[in-house]
Amino acid sequence: MPKVTFLPANITVDVASDENLLKAAMGAGIHINASCGGAGVCNKCRIFVEEGQVKGEELPEGGWKACATTPVTDVVVRVPVESQMDRKALARPLARKAAAWIQAHGEELSVKSEPAVAKRLISVPEPSVTDHISDLGRISRELGQNLNLDVDGDVLHHLPYALRDGNWTVTASLLESQVPDYKRLIRVEPGDKTKAQHGVCIDIGTTTVSARLVSLLDQKVLAESSDYNPQVSYGEDVISRMEFARKGDGLKILQEKIVGCLNKLISELLSETGLEREDISLVTVAANSVMTHFLLGLETKFLRSAPYTPVANKFPQVLARDIGLELPSHVRMFLAPCVASYVGGDIVAGVVGVGINHQPELTLFIDIGTNGEIVLGNQDWMACAACSAGPAFEGGGIKYGMRATVGAVEVVHIHPETFEPMILTIGGKKAKGICGSGIISLLAGLFMTGALDRQGKFRRDLPTKRIREGRDGWEYVVVEKEATAIKEDIVFTEADVENLIRAKGAMFAGYLTLLESVGMSIDDLERVILAGNFGSYLDLEQAITIGLLPDIPRDRFFFAGNSSLTGAQVAAISWPKFKEMEKVAQMMTHFDLADNPRFMDNYVSCLFLPHTDLSLFPSVKEALKEE
Amino acid sequence: MPKVTFLPANITVDVASDENLLKAAMGAGIHINASCGGAGVCNKCRIFVEEGQVKGEELPEGGWKACATTPVTDVVVRVPVESQMDRKALARPLARKAAAWIQAHGEELSVKSEPAVAKRLISVPEPSVTDHISDLGRISRELGQNLNLDVDGDVLHHLPYALRDGNWTVTASLLESQVPDYKRLIRVEPGDKTKAQHGVCIDIGTTTVSARLVSLLDQKVLAESSDYNPQVSYGEDVISRMEFARKGDGLKILQEKIVGCLNKLISELLSETGLEREDISLVTVAANSVMTHFLLGLETKFLRSAPYTPVANKFPQVLARDIGLELPSHVRMFLAPCVASYVGGDIVAGVVGVGINHQPELTLFIDIGTNGEIVLGNQDWMACAACSAGPAFEGGGIKYGMRATVGAVEVVHIHPETFEPMILTIGGKKAKGICGSGIISLLAGLFMTGALDRQGKFRRDLPTKRIREGRDGWEYVVVEKEATAIKEDIVFTEADVENLIRAKGAMFAGYLTLLESVGMSIDDLERVILAGNFGSYLDLEQAITIGLLPDIPRDRFFFAGNSSLTGAQVAAISWPKFKEMEKVAQMMTHFDLADNPRFMDNYVSCLFLPHTDLSLFPSVKEALKEE
Repeated sequence: MPKVTFLPANITVDVASDENLLKAAMGAGIHINASCGGAGVCNKCRIFVEEGQVKGEELPEGGWKACATTPVTDVVVRVPVESQMDRKALARPLARKAAAWIQAHGEELSVKSEPAVAKRLISVPEPSVTDHISDLGRISRELGQNLNLDVDGDVLHHLPYALRDGNWTVTASLLESQVPDYKRLIRVEPGDKTKAQHGVCIDIGTTTVSARLVSLLDQKVLAESSDYNPQVSYGEDVISRMEFARKGDGLKILQEKIVGCLNKLISELLSETGLEREDISLVTVAANSVMTHFLLGLETKFLRSAPYTPVANKFPQVLARDIGLELPSHVRMFLAPCVASYVGGDIVAGVVGVGINHQPELTLFIDIGTNGEIVLGNQDWMACAACSAGPAFEGGGIKYGMRATVGAVEVVHIHPETFEPMILTIGGKKAKGICGSGIISLLAGLFMTGALDRQGKFRRDLPTKRIREGRDGWEYVVVEKEATAIKEDIVFTEADVENLIRAKGAMFAGYLTLLESVGMSIDDLERVILAGNFGSYLDLEQAITIGLLPDIPRDRFFFAGNSSLTGAQVAAISWPKFKEMEKVAQMMTHFDLADNPRFMDNYVSCLFLPHTDLSLFPSVKEALKEE
Repeated sequence: MPKVTFLPANITVDVASDENLLKAAMGAGIHINASCGGAGVCNKCRIFVEEGQVKGEELPEGGWKACATTPVTDVVVRVPVESQMDRKALARPLARKAAAWIQAHGEELSVKSEPAVAKRLISVPEPSVTDHISDLGRISRELGQNLNLDVDGDVLHHLPYALRDGNWTVTASLLESQVPDYKRLIRVEPGDKTKAQHGVCIDIGTTTVSARLVSLLDQKVLAESSDYNPQVSYGEDVISRMEFARKGDGLKILQEKIVGCLNKLISELLSETGLEREDISLVTVAANSVMTHFLLGLETKFLRSAPYTPVANKFPQVLARDIGLELPSHVRMFLAPCVASYVGGDIVAGVVGVGINHQPELTLFIDIGTNGEIVLGNQDWMACAACSAGPAFEGGGIKYGMRATVGAVEVVHIHPETFEPMILTIGGKKAKGICGSGIISLLAGLFMTGALDRQGKFRRDLPTKRIREGRDGWEYVVVEKEATAIKEDIVFTEADVENLIRAKGAMFAGYLTLLESVGMSIDDLERVILAGNFGSYLDLEQAITIGLLPDIPRDRFFFAGNSSLTGAQVAAISWPKFKEMEKVAQMMTHFDLADNPRFMDNYVSCLFLPHTDLSLFPSVKEALKEE
């Protein structure tokens, strides 16, 4: 891996030979003006090569385009606009500080394999005149006297053939019940089919649906697939979808759409692994309350309006085929239980997936999505709340906000003197808008360079044309129209800032309120776990800078990835873990923040960058002093 | 009620004013020659009225036709062919001696009302901002913390509307499980529907299907209906139906036929009571193993041939709709468990219906049907066996045997000197054949008059034309062709007698073998319970005479009627009783008589009238001495 030294800062970093020098500079904390996001059109990211060999695009006036140049050997490059002024800014690491992975996406889990549906190989003696008990009695006898065996009606239709075709050896699928020693025989296959034990684990998000196919024997993830939730066409958020569900066949349509999506994902998982539908033993699903209602076709009318009553928080096992999944008739679907209308099965699954319910550390579990759910607690107790943070961090309500797809500005660095931006877009394509992580780095950068004050207002007196009064009030020009894919300036407005401050304020006020309610404070937090896909792209320092995350030692932060899916996976592999979800859902004290006067007080105090009370953010306070 | 005195016997009986004098004579034990069964065509039943008034048919040569004459006032009549010779025969009561009813057909039962599905009226507080748990949680909370509530998926679709339509008062239907404190919510109706709790109880016999609609609250039988089992068209007995089931769609056809029959009976029960399908909470079914297999559509191929293995003896609850019953989707069907291939749920239901499993008396429970099942035991232990008695007592394998329908000879008395018969037919119509009770009275009469010897052979030297050598060997002419509906002599052959002796021999050998196997004898029997419709028409004395029933004090005999249906009824009203069936099925030791050498020995000894060992039949021995 070539070494690249950036001058005049004299910072050396290892750079993969296929990584361009703009990304390398961003990683090293070196600012290079670059406003096209790496699309190669703005020609601003000029660097000079002083030693070594590179390949890429040379500029006619000399130098190379950093965004289109990669190192061939170790190289020394000089950034021309670089100055000693930058050094101070560089003292704080600009590079994304990733929290440790607590349970990596797709990583195999060390949960004991005890699935809700387990296969057992059973050999029975052939009936004779002295031993002619029934076929079912024969199976039952082999399973042991202490087992109370219930049986699916359908099994009895297959049983006589399975026993005889398998020459008196069959594979029995036994479903666990709530009571030990009561099991249900749900399937009998001739011969030894014990190797074919697989589970489909599904996380249904409002926006994205993810599925994994796992081996229930060795817990390996065999395939993974995800897609947008097709219900998006009927409403971006849960509220608009619940409105849609109220009219005509709305609910039916939403149910069919999500089932269609699941069928598609399951087909993909199967074709990727070469497995058959018959190889699936069970399905687990984790989803928020509204998504769970839609999946089961349950009325959401009363969940939509005060006092926001779900039909159920704990759901019965469902035959997968009954809701329309193209799976064998014996396959059951297990749904993660919800806690309340806005703290759903995704959160409960996340808590169990991560294992918070087994750990002594006081943990704050944060899922920053549309809604923003938080859980505070440890193995002994848990409190939870939904923060109504809104979708700002997903790009919603932000003028040029967009989802994290190709062309989204995902990282921004603001030059502390010139206020020129250095941006990267997803896929290195011309910018179309700004996604969540871009929005946070933009807000943090503008605040730390002093372009934004603590109230979230732009300073009107700075020597830059990028801050200007536009049609919608004061704004910062992130990408000029010449460099965008949309042929208009991509700007970041004071209204956007206000939305973001409200969103992060709701989250932080949520943390404070839950902590206060148990007589604790931010400093008592031993661990903060960030869940959701958002969590994994979040720059920890920037998120703390804007007051979205608490300012505590960085080694207390962990990313959990899609912990909802992890939870679904854990529940597929382990029936005890599924039952833990029910316990966790029951033990969680739900705080309704909307009615909580302390929450309102805290919220108002949070409507500043990072917070009214700077003593809550000592490292930000320190950095601001240095500016 | 007029009094009728018969001369010369000088016996007086009360006679209903619409009862003809032939029947009255039969009831009084007076023999009147009458070979047309009351159809009024043989003109043999002449009597003379000496005092009082009658109405009916006078004969041109003087006197009245007893079969067509009823008393208007108290009357004295003289039977012309009567002689002192008869007196001795009259010393033994000829009139049918009925055993006591132990559990009358249609009688209401004194079982505590604890149905498997019980309705509970639940009122919950309306949700508010301070109490917005889920709809299901609200029901669950009201039902109590100690109850583990499972729920049918379908309930969740109705729940939000039921709660709101019922103004927060609903009727919940709770299904019991195998484990106390675990119940399943299977239905929620708005408002108070607790009055609508009804069960459909069904007995599926090989020949006849009977159903009752009972109130699960006050245990009243509200309606009753029965019909022939339409599977009869595909085979008279279980063996021929299992043969039919092996071919093509045979099994499916048999399943559809019985389901169609049940649907018809249920419709009749509902229209008779004015109830709706929605008023039905559950269905219970008692049937033999083969009928149960057919109802569930289970393979009977392996039940058909040695070693006669049923798919199951204990059956899961089935959704009534899943097998095709036109009932609401929540309605469960509970099937009485079987013990072995030929000791079915009808027997188990009968034992629990009668209550043998709670009583200390050593009881012999006998169901004389096609197969002949017997149970021996009491509250502490039970042994059972199927006797392979064959259908002779149902008219099967008897030359002029027929079912007990209009035109069947149901009672026969043989004149001890002239050997002329006095017969009654069902409906007083011209004879078409002889049904079970007629066959027994014929056999008993021919034996007691000495027309048949103990080996079952006709005496060839008697002064009567009725005993003759026919095409099929020696025979007794029961009805001459002029008086029949079929225009041929109805005869009773030595081959018929042989079949009957074999059938009663198999039954009696069964009693003896079961008793011996527990070291007991006939005299130890404290009670004999006769089940099945056959039981209720059986003349006890005649049945003992031919050696079908043991010769013990008559007050130890009881008729239980259709005890299988009674058992289904008890199980509908009481879930504990249904569970008792499972216990009873498990506690029953099944003796396979086919392989039992003692049974074969006993059987051979039973191939006499009444038995090789006359000391087993002291009262018959006494009566024979008197002849």
